[in-house]
Formats: sequence, C-alpha cells, structure tokens
Amino acid sequence: MKSQRIYLDHIAGTPVAPEVLHAMMPFLQDDFGNPASIHHHGELPQDALFRSREQVARLIGAENEEIIFTSCGTESNNVAIKGIAFDQIENGKHIVLSAVEHYSVLYAAKSLEKFGFEITTVPVDSLCRVDPDDVRKAIRPETVLVSIMLANNEVGTIQPLAEVSGLTRERGILLHCDAVAAVGRIPVNAKQLGVDLLSLSANQFNGPKGAAALYCRKGVQIWPLFHGGGQEDGRRTGTENVAGIMGMGKAAELAMANLPERIRASVALERKLASEIAARIDEIQFNGDPQNHLPGLVNVSFRYVEGEALLLHMDMRGISVAGASACMSITAKASHVLEAMGALNDGALGTLLFTLGAENTEEEIIRSVDTLSQVVSMLRAMSPLYEQRKSR
Amino acid sequence: MKSQRIYLDHIAGTPVAPEVLHAMMPFLQDDFGNPASIHHHGELPQDALFRSREQVARLIGAENEEIIFTSCGTESNNVAIKGIAFDQIENGKHIVLSAVEHYSVLYAAKSLEKFGFEITTVPVDSLCRVDPDDVRKAIRPETVLVSIMLANNEVGTIQPLAEVSGLTRERGILLHCDAVAAVGRIPVNAKQLGVDLLSLSANQFNGPKGAAALYCRKGVQIWPLFHGGGQEDGRRTGTENVAGIMGMGKAAELAMANLPERIRASVALERKLASEIAARIDEIQFNGDPQNHLPGLVNVSFRYVEGEALLLHMDMRGISVAGASACMSITAKASHVLEAMGALNDGALGTLLFTLGAENTEEEIIRSVDTLSQVVSMLRAMSPLYEQRKSR
Repeated sequence: MKSQRIYLDHIAGTPVAPEVLHAMMPFLQDDFGNPASIHHHGELPQDALFRSREQVARLIGAENEEIIFTSCGTESNNVAIKGIAFDQIENGKHIVLSAVEHYSVLYAAKSLEKFGFEITTVPVDSLCRVDPDDVRKAIRPETVLVSIMLANNEVGTIQPLAEVSGLTRERGILLHCDAVAAVGRIPVNAKQLGVDLLSLSANQFNGPKGAAALYCRKGVQIWPLFHGGGQEDGRRTGTENVAGIMGMGKAAELAMANLPERIRASVALERKLASEIAARIDEIQFNGDPQNHLPGLVNVSFRYVEGEALLLHMDMRGISVAGASACMSITAKASHVLEAMGALNDGALGTLLFTLGAENTEEEIIRSVDTLSQVVSMLRAMSPLYEQRKSR
Repeated sequence: MKSQRIYLDHIAGTPVAPEVLHAMMPFLQDDFGNPASIHHHGELPQDALFRSREQVARLIGAENEEIIFTSCGTESNNVAIKGIAFDQIENGKHIVLSAVEHYSVLYAAKSLEKFGFEITTVPVDSLCRVDPDDVRKAIRPETVLVSIMLANNEVGTIQPLAEVSGLTRERGILLHCDAVAAVGRIPVNAKQLGVDLLSLSANQFNGPKGAAALYCRKGVQIWPLFHGGGQEDGRRTGTENVAGIMGMGKAAELAMANLPERIRASVALERKLASEIAARIDEIQFNGDPQNHLPGLVNVSFRYVEGEALLLHMDMRGISVAGASACMSITAKASHVLEAMGALNDGALGTLLFTLGAENTEEEIIRSVDTLSQVVSMLRAMSPLYEQRKSR
C-alpha cells in the first residue's frame, strides 16, 4: 500500500537514493574494516572517507580539511555552538541567535547558560526575515558567536547570511550557519556566505540518516564534543560510520549534479500546490517569505481548523505531511517560528507544512489538494467559529 | 582476493552479520521515514526503535528506558564522562579513572581540566589489573565520577567492576564503565555489575558502524552533549540513525543467542593461537591477565623486532592484525596500556594484538602462525640485538 501513499514531508527526511544505497553497500559487507587500521582492511574505508569528504566539500564550496563528519544535523549544530562557546569561554560569554533557529541551535545555546553564557535572540519580521541591523545591535564586546540559519525549516525563509557575515567578520566574531534545511535544496557556498561554521545533513538530500557534517573554516578552533583517539583531525573522534559517510558523499555528488533540475521541478510543483490550495480553500494564510524561500516548501495555515486533526485526517487518507517540524512533533508545542513571526495571533489556526521531493508528481499534488479540501471542509463543518464567521 | 585474506583484528571492527544487514535494509529503502513524524511514515521507524531498544536492553540486563542510542563508543564514553561532570559541576570537580582506559575516556576526562576538574589515575599491575583498594584511596569528598573499563581493549584484562561498584555505591558516587570491548564477547549485566553508566558499541558484535549505546541507570541525570528537539528522552537529541539502530538491535539479539557458543569457539582458537606462537617463536611475552581476559584476544610482544615492521610484513602476506588498538594507529604512539603495566621496560619490543571473531577458523590460525614465525625470523635475522643475544 505504501507506494500509493503520498509523502510530502521531505524536511523530516528524504528517501535514500538508489545510487546512494549502492555506494553504501560494500561498507556494510566486505569492506567493513576500520579506516584507522593500518592494514589492508583499513585501506578501502580510508579511501572512501577521503572521497566522500571531497564530494561533500565540493557541494558547499569548501576544502576537504574543512569538513568534519558528524552523525546528524543536531550534532553539527551542537558542536558548532558548544564547541565555539567552550573554546572561547575565556574570551566572552555572549551568543547571538535568531528567534527562529532550529531547536538544536536554540537549546544548545540555552544549555550554556549553566556556564554563565548569555543569549540574545534577534527577532524576525512577519515573513520570518532577520534584519542584519538587529544582529549588529545585538553584538556586544563579549560576543563570541553569532548563529543564524540559512533557510528556516518550517517556513523556508532564506536569511541574508552574506550581510550578516560582513558584520561579524568586521568585528572578528565567529558566525555559524545552520544550513541543514538548505543544503541540497538551494546552492550553498560556505565561502561566498562568509560563514565560519556551517551545518548540513545527508538525510535532507537523499542521503542516509546517521551522516551529517560541519563545515569548520580553516583556522577556526572548536572544543570537540568527542575527545579520544583522534579521528577527524581530533575534532570529532570516534570510529566513523563509513557506510553512512559514503552515502552522504554520493548524495552530495548527486545533489550537485541535479540541483538546477531539482529546483526547477520543486518550484513548479510548489506553485501548483500553493495555487490549488488558494483556489479551492478559503480563509487561509501562507507563511514565510513568498519572494525568497526554499523551493518545494509550502507552509499554510487554515483558520477555524485544529492542526492536529488536519494532520491525522490527511494521514488517514494516505498523505504524509507535517504539522510543523518533525523535531517539534515530539514535544507537540506551538511553533516558535510562527510565534516569532506573529502568525499565531489569529486564534483557531491549523498549520500544515508541505515539503516536496524529487519523487513527487503533479498527480500527487492534485490528489493531495483534493483530499485537503475535503478534510478542511469536513473539519470546518464541525467548527462553530467557522459557522459564525460565515453567517457574519 | 579478499576472501583469502585473514582478518584477526575484530577489536577494530567486526563484519556486519548478514541477518543484521537484512534487518537494516528496509530502513534504507521504503521505511526511510523519521521516527518523530506523527504520520504513517513515522510509524515503522518508531516501532523499529522500540524493538531495537528492547533487544539492546536485554543484552545487558537493562530496562528499555535506560538505553540511550549514540553514534559510536567514543560518543557513549564522552556523554558519560562529560555528561556527568557538567551535570555535577556544582557538586565537585574530581574524577577517578584507571590508567588503562580507552583514549575516549582518558581524553574526555582530560578535556575537563579546562573547567577546573582534577583527574586521578589509578595504576594497574603487570597483568593490567586495577586494585579496587586503589580506587577507594583515590576517591575524595569532591569526587563526582569513577570510570573503570570492564575489559581492556588492548590486552583484554577484565576488571573487578562489581567490587568497584560496591565502593562507589556506598559513597554515593556515580560509576561509569566502558564496556565497549566487552559487550558481545563476555556476558555483561549492568545491574549485576552495579554500574550507573555503561558504554557499548554495535560494531564490536557484528553490528554496523554508526550505532552504539549508553546505559544510563534510571534516575541518573546527564548534561546532554546534544540539545534540541528531544529525541532519546532529551538525553541525546537528533534524528536517529534508524537503520544503524535496527542493525544494533539485531546484532544484540544474535549476540545474546550465540554468546556461549562464540565464547567456546573463541577460547579454543585463542588457545591454539597462543600455544602455537609459544611453541614456534622464542623470546616472546604474552600481555594481559592469563586467567581473566576477553576470549579470543591474544596480545603478544616479540623481543628484537620492531612492531610496525611486524605489522606491515604480516599485512603484505595477507594477514590483518593490529599493532595496538586501532584508535592508537592514528597517533602511532607507544601503548599507554603496556606502559602502565610496565611491559615496555624491555627495549626492542614489537607487539601484535590478535582479536578473533566468529568467522575465523583453525586453518586460518595455523596459516597465521606459519606466516608470523617466518616474519619474526626474517626481521630478527636483520636485528644486531638478536644476534648478540644468541651468541651470549
């Protein structure tokens, strides 16, 4: 039955590309050796790591030695935030973030308050945009790190990172960029962005779960979260997930080759989705920056509908879509992103986050909007508020 | 040609069992969803996590909620050491270790000196045994953590953890046990050992790289190394490596079912290996506790031979064996374990670490000792020291 289901939640994870799985397989079979071994069984895994590092570096315009492999985007973000904070602890204890950072950035920073760090949160406007001038104002003499995401994982808004990096570089402050939602969806070049650290995750671009990376600009020091034998140049010790890293490398290569076509297709489908929703359902609100957002992402709120009910009824009808970020699903809290945008002022509001992928088709989009339109009508028919509003 | 090679370095990593790979495959294909998603695509991954957690818990006599999945043994050790230290930072800044801990424990602890922690290292005897009385003497009022490994990864000596836990429990001090080398090779029961935290890694028992775990006794708090959305009960946030974790679960199940037979076979092969070496090569020294060590592990030093040359010549002849731990290969330092045992006093000493696995055969052992004997003779023929000694 699974093939008939429609998956529109790619921000929670993408299918592993067949070529990626193919690249991983030898390292789950004959080539199981440890890359640290200085005998035959270590050689192929070692070569594989080298190749993958090159592929990942190329995807984001970095040099090989600037790539640290990690196990997930959350690790990359935590290594960046805590790694810089602890390394710089004698130099200052102030960190600047945007209000709409991913939880792994927000809470990593918050966890440092125990060590005396202060966190300043920069607001966003109603389209989820950070104003670089607000970043400038938030910076203090004791600021050691600014962390601003490249593209928001809930509403897709792309932030003016190059402008922010102008400010931080001028002041000699390190800049981290959570690009987990962005890499594989838009072109990302760490050098052009001018950031010092940048997080990315394989599972956002058809690589496997368990493989991610942190770009760490040459010369930037971190206090490693994992100390030990010395893998990843001492910055992330531990036996490498060789198969996962191989998968990430292949996925990076594919993303690089296919990005223009992927963007074209995603944008076309996204426009179809948004325009069909707008044409067929009233009392809605699209969230995010319509001009400058991740291709393939549509975040839309429906008035007079409860979000969880919406999600469950879509699911029952064979459509997998998110209510908010997958990371939030666990805690079932209201979106801090929509809240920061002032988009929750309107009381009864159910939000769906559609994120499209390479395998989605126009037929799936049409079927999804058919279903969505029925579900919204059904739920609104049960809503006294919607009835009141109609009779106004 | 690979099938004709002999792999005797299982402590650096074991082959992934076919059943393990089989259990992983669905999650690298159709069931790629995010366990945090509250729609259809999240369900199977979620169930899989639950099942794996149960399998891993059962292997070490733990309860499901006491298992935190991590990405490698080094992560587990770092989470334990830093997680307790940072959580307890207001209560005391003293940690007790043995001198022969894995680098990921030693250096994780050492990294905390930056935060004012003091580390006391307990010695070992010539068989690599920790004396619990030395642990008792090292404990101070401000000690917050003791970390003693269950079995040493270089010489295999098994430590008296139950005695140590008697001491720590009496004093209300937390005890971590690095059981990475032990789990899958000997029966390990966290409750019977009386430890508060225990590290294990899938790749030590025919699971994949990229999946490991930390046992964290109910009620024991840690400062998480990864903060964020809240996976693993908030103790290790981040999208789970579902396929890897599934593999770990299956590997745990197999290890549990096959352990008695694996031990029997390993001990038989290990005895064969050791007795053949002893019978055919002179001027050798076995390292570790002959009575109480990991089955299948033989650490042996050859006088008048250079370790690296030994290793390379074995490798050239088709035998993969370690010079010391794989983790040490990177840094190419002399073994801190042999040093702590006082086993390096004898100058020109080349050491090989053989670790046998389920797929090794007696024929392989015989072939390996044939080769070893030739290599040692050849190298000694070039050694002026060996000539001098013979002519004494």
